[in-house]
Amino acid sequence: MKKFVNDPQQFVPEMLKGIALANPDTLRYVPEYNLIMRSDAPRDDKVSIVQGSGSGHEPAHAMAVGPGMLDAACPGDVFSAPPSDYVYETTKLLRSEMGVLHIINNYTGDRMAFDMGRELAEAEGIQVGTVVVDDDVAVTDSTYTVGRRGVAGNFFVIKALGASSERGAELDDLVALGRRVNDVTRSMGIALTSCTPPAKGSPLFDLGEDEIEVGVGIHGEPGRRREPMKAADELVDEMLEAILGDLPYASGDEVALMVNGLGGTPISELYVLYAHAHEALAERGIDVGRSYVGEYCTSLDMAGASLTLVRLDEELKELLTAPAQIAAHTF
Amino acid sequence: MKKFVNDPQQFVPEMLKGIALANPDTLRYVPEYNLIMRSDAPRDDKVSIVQGSGSGHEPAHAMAVGPGMLDAACPGDVFSAPPSDYVYETTKLLRSEMGVLHIINNYTGDRMAFDMGRELAEAEGIQVGTVVVDDDVAVTDSTYTVGRRGVAGNFFVIKALGASSERGAELDDLVALGRRVNDVTRSMGIALTSCTPPAKGSPLFDLGEDEIEVGVGIHGEPGRRREPMKAADELVDEMLEAILGDLPYASGDEVALMVNGLGGTPISELYVLYAHAHEALAERGIDVGRSYVGEYCTSLDMAGASLTLVRLDEELKELLTAPAQIAAHTF
Repeated sequence: MKKFVNDPQQFVPEMLKGIALANPDTLRYVPEYNLIMRSDAPRDDKVSIVQGSGSGHEPAHAMAVGPGMLDAACPGDVFSAPPSDYVYETTKLLRSEMGVLHIINNYTGDRMAFDMGRELAEAEGIQVGTVVVDDDVAVTDSTYTVGRRGVAGNFFVIKALGASSERGAELDDLVALGRRVNDVTRSMGIALTSCTPPAKGSPLFDLGEDEIEVGVGIHGEPGRRREPMKAADELVDEMLEAILGDLPYASGDEVALMVNGLGGTPISELYVLYAHAHEALAERGIDVGRSYVGEYCTSLDMAGASLTLVRLDEELKELLTAPAQIAAHTF
Repeated sequence: MKKFVNDPQQFVPEMLKGIALANPDTLRYVPEYNLIMRSDAPRDDKVSIVQGSGSGHEPAHAMAVGPGMLDAACPGDVFSAPPSDYVYETTKLLRSEMGVLHIINNYTGDRMAFDMGRELAEAEGIQVGTVVVDDDVAVTDSTYTVGRRGVAGNFFVIKALGASSERGAELDDLVALGRRVNDVTRSMGIALTSCTPPAKGSPLFDLGEDEIEVGVGIHGEPGRRREPMKAADELVDEMLEAILGDLPYASGDEVALMVNGLGGTPISELYVLYAHAHEALAERGIDVGRSYVGEYCTSLDMAGASLTLVRLDEELKELLTAPAQIAAHTF
């Protein structure tokens, strides 16, 4: 498997250096802790919003730092939680009078690292709030996870909290908002191929020439089942079925709809999926108020896609339209 | 090869429908001519900027329509020029008192279609200007091309013309500006894998397990040579060497630097490439004034990347920072 890599052990630091070099005026890179932070953070008139997780899901989360989004991201190595002392040091560097909010994907390693990092920070008098994201309806208690996994729904938690924190919301209110967003967010993904971690150099799992993994995790974890490949519309129907049955969405609801590429799938295919998802929701009387098509939370070079639905209310819809600026999207 | 496709013949129309459904307030889809246009176009206080080319290069160009960018895109089928009557009908629909500007990638089919479309439109009294993009330094007189090919440098021509046209620039001035941007723009790409057109269902060409195509075209056309796979930094050096030798860039120059993914390469790898490109330019005294990392002009699901350099001056740099809004990037 060919990849643009030098020393695989340096893959994450080199990527982070690239992010910093491409954004010299707005971002700061702290190599000791794999840390990418806004150069104007921390600010005492705003809670600092911090996300950490394994790398390999870019643009989540190292490229989601900027005004209206994260104040900092402290990624671990590829598919590995950040060490707890990185979380601790990041929390200290982002210390604000208003507190620090940790957004954590629900994986055992991430939760342990952030629990320990939080305790160390709290011992120094830093106020820390926590929001756990677990939007993946595919499975519970998967590899690396107790409960459900956190996947692309993360984006909506970050966007809402980023927007609200820019307006001066208090830590407690942000924690409540983050949990509320997570509660109305559901995702489901399908892999057409495995991904290949740089340090491994070979695919994480094998799929047959005409086989797909329905409900795949973003680290290549098994989903619900393997199936033969089908037409795009049928795959959308399978993902929607799983999502719509989980959080009852009613006719008349307004939703945000995301079609997220897993890394190796071109955006042309994502829009083919989007067209059918939008129309299938319309047939059920569910109105798409906000649309997202592209790569938001990937699994290295995996070919595949996920759907995410968020049930909107007026407050949430307004927060999602707030201005934001991140490293990943320049044009 | 698994792809998210229904009927391969409907791949492009379904994608275009998806773009329209995701942007109901700002874009209009005219299925008869594969046309995506701004819903507020044409405007008589602005030249209409139109791009057409084969599909399969998304976000170029169907997802590059919006304020500050294109007024319309009329793509053909995958890797096929749009029919000349689509160009003609698009030009009529985009007719403005100030004229219509065609941006054309330098491929024989695209040039023929646009030449004929322009002549038909001019016969009806529509003022039409033309800018041809040919930024690829890899080869001349390749498959489908007399002269050099137009690749990712297209983005900079669109961005500069989009910005200038919003400010009311005249057609002649825009033609001159577009040619000036093209003249200082150079690109070079490397493929790690082939791409797979939906209607073909199998890779366009074969590359060995450890082999790459240096100077590849965005339709899978041969480049300069095949080589064994190398470290990321060495590949950047090869691409930079080709670009820097072509347009003499001098110490003290300021450039825009784009690392463009070809469709199947994750953004994490693109930032690894970016880090070295930025530093290699700095060593030569060339300063990166604007950075672009992501997918701008792809070749379906091809794994690979291209570098583009644009020599900046104050006017051009200012135009590149102008506000713009396109379908491809929502966050």
